Amino acid sequence: MKSSTVTIEVSAPRRHTYLDLTEELERAVKDSGVTDGAAIVFCPHTTCALLINEWEDGALDDFRDRMLHLVPEDAYYAHDDLERRTQNLDQSHERQNGHSHVKSMLLSATSHAIPVAAGEPLLGRWQRLILFEMDDPKDRQVVFHVFGE
Amino acid sequence: MKSSTVTIEVSAPRRHTYLDLTEELERAVKDSGVTDGAAIVFCPHTTCALLINEWEDGALDDFRDRMLHLVPEDAYYAHDDLERRTQNLDQSHERQNGHSHVKSMLLSATSHAIPVAAGEPLLGRWQRLILFEMDDPKDRQVVFHVFGE
Amino acid sequence: MKSSTVTIEVSAPRRHTYLDLTEELERAVKDSGVTDGAAIVFCPHTTCALLINEWEDGALDDFRDRMLHLVPEDAYYAHDDLERRTQNLDQSHERQNGHSHVKSMLLSATSHAIPVAAGEPLLGRWQRLILFEMDDPKDRQVVFHVFGE
Repeated sequence: MKSSTVTIEVSAPRRHTYLDLTEELERAVKDSGVTDGAAIVFCPHTTCALLINEWEDGALDDFRDRMLHLVPEDAYYAHDDLERRTQNLDQSHERQNGHSHVKSMLLSATSHAIPVAAGEPLLGRWQRLILFEMDDPKDRQVVFHVFGE
Repeated sequence: MKSSTVTIEVSAPRRHTYLDLTEELERAVKDSGVTDGAAIVFCPHTTCALLINEWEDGALDDFRDRMLHLVPEDAYYAHDDLERRTQNLDQSHERQNGHSHVKSMLLSATSHAIPVAAGEPLLGRWQRLILFEMDDPKDRQVVFHVFGE
Repeated sequence: MKSSTVTIEVSAPRRHTYLDLTEELERAVKDSGVTDGAAIVFCPHTTCALLINEWEDGALDDFRDRMLHLVPEDAYYAHDDLERRTQNLDQSHERQNGHSHVKSMLLSATSHAIPVAAGEPLLGRWQRLILFEMDDPKDRQVVFHVFGE
């Protein structure tokens, strides 16, 4: 039984853009020395998400457009109402990101567990591991925990 | 390699309210004796969900309001139509909770996998483990399975 | 410490139908010889999802109807716009399945992690493991990775 935990840092170019992290996942699995087991991928943030789907620009545009329709940026968010809010305030620079908290909870895509065989994550032919940034760009961490034989 | 499974019982005060279970998760990790590994959190119910996000009352209100907009309580639900339904009936007290089954499937937030390092779950600065009760309050179980070295 | 990875093949009868895979999960756990540990279930596809909820025809109908309302099949999808698309094209038979990619990302239900005790997955009384096919029927794989003592 081996296990390995590594954290990478990434940053998306703009709000509502995507990063392909599949190669980073494959490297974490390879570097762990695990040939048969599983990989946990974990996003320690509250306004971005980890998707597993196809990297095709049209599909990613479709998904962003649908998310903005379901959870509009210009709706009222109590999280952004500084007349009302009292908790977790960063007075120096409080982001207007209520919409991205709601999207993040709706997706509930904070972690995934992916089987590993022959030293590779068992992703399907079209599956890529994708970070979806829903907030203004900032440095993001992604944690890979790989375990097995 | 160590592992430990513990089940806790909790109950939310009202429908569409939240419970912060972060301390219960931290305790389960500490009690397991695992310092490096991962924790699985699992909700063995069909009308509540486990969220990982910020505990800020405004953001949690925003999310509840959006979920009720996307999946209204006053829509028609075949699950609640006793003229039609034949399966899984509890004649003594069948809840009108079709809306919460739909919300639960939409969220698909039944389990999470969280890396553990230095005896702590690797939650980000703002992340809390939160139970979201979408049904009338009832006793709920949450299972923590911690494994590693 | 034991672990076992098995892949099954299944196929749903029509688009937007469901398959109950609970017995297949129970069999994978039993065949692994693991009595205490966890099971990862993983769907290596981009247009179907793994749900954990009640198998009651009304609730499953309600969920399908709501998903089709939130992500309509007859909306414009760039993924299906062959005037625009350049990536990942299968010239011989490109499916019009943009809607199902969006649904799949919205659900983000590609994997689950389920504790195992006494040789059984710790599913709740009403929980079933359910594949939700959102594309035209095709052969689908589901991977079970079971690990523990």
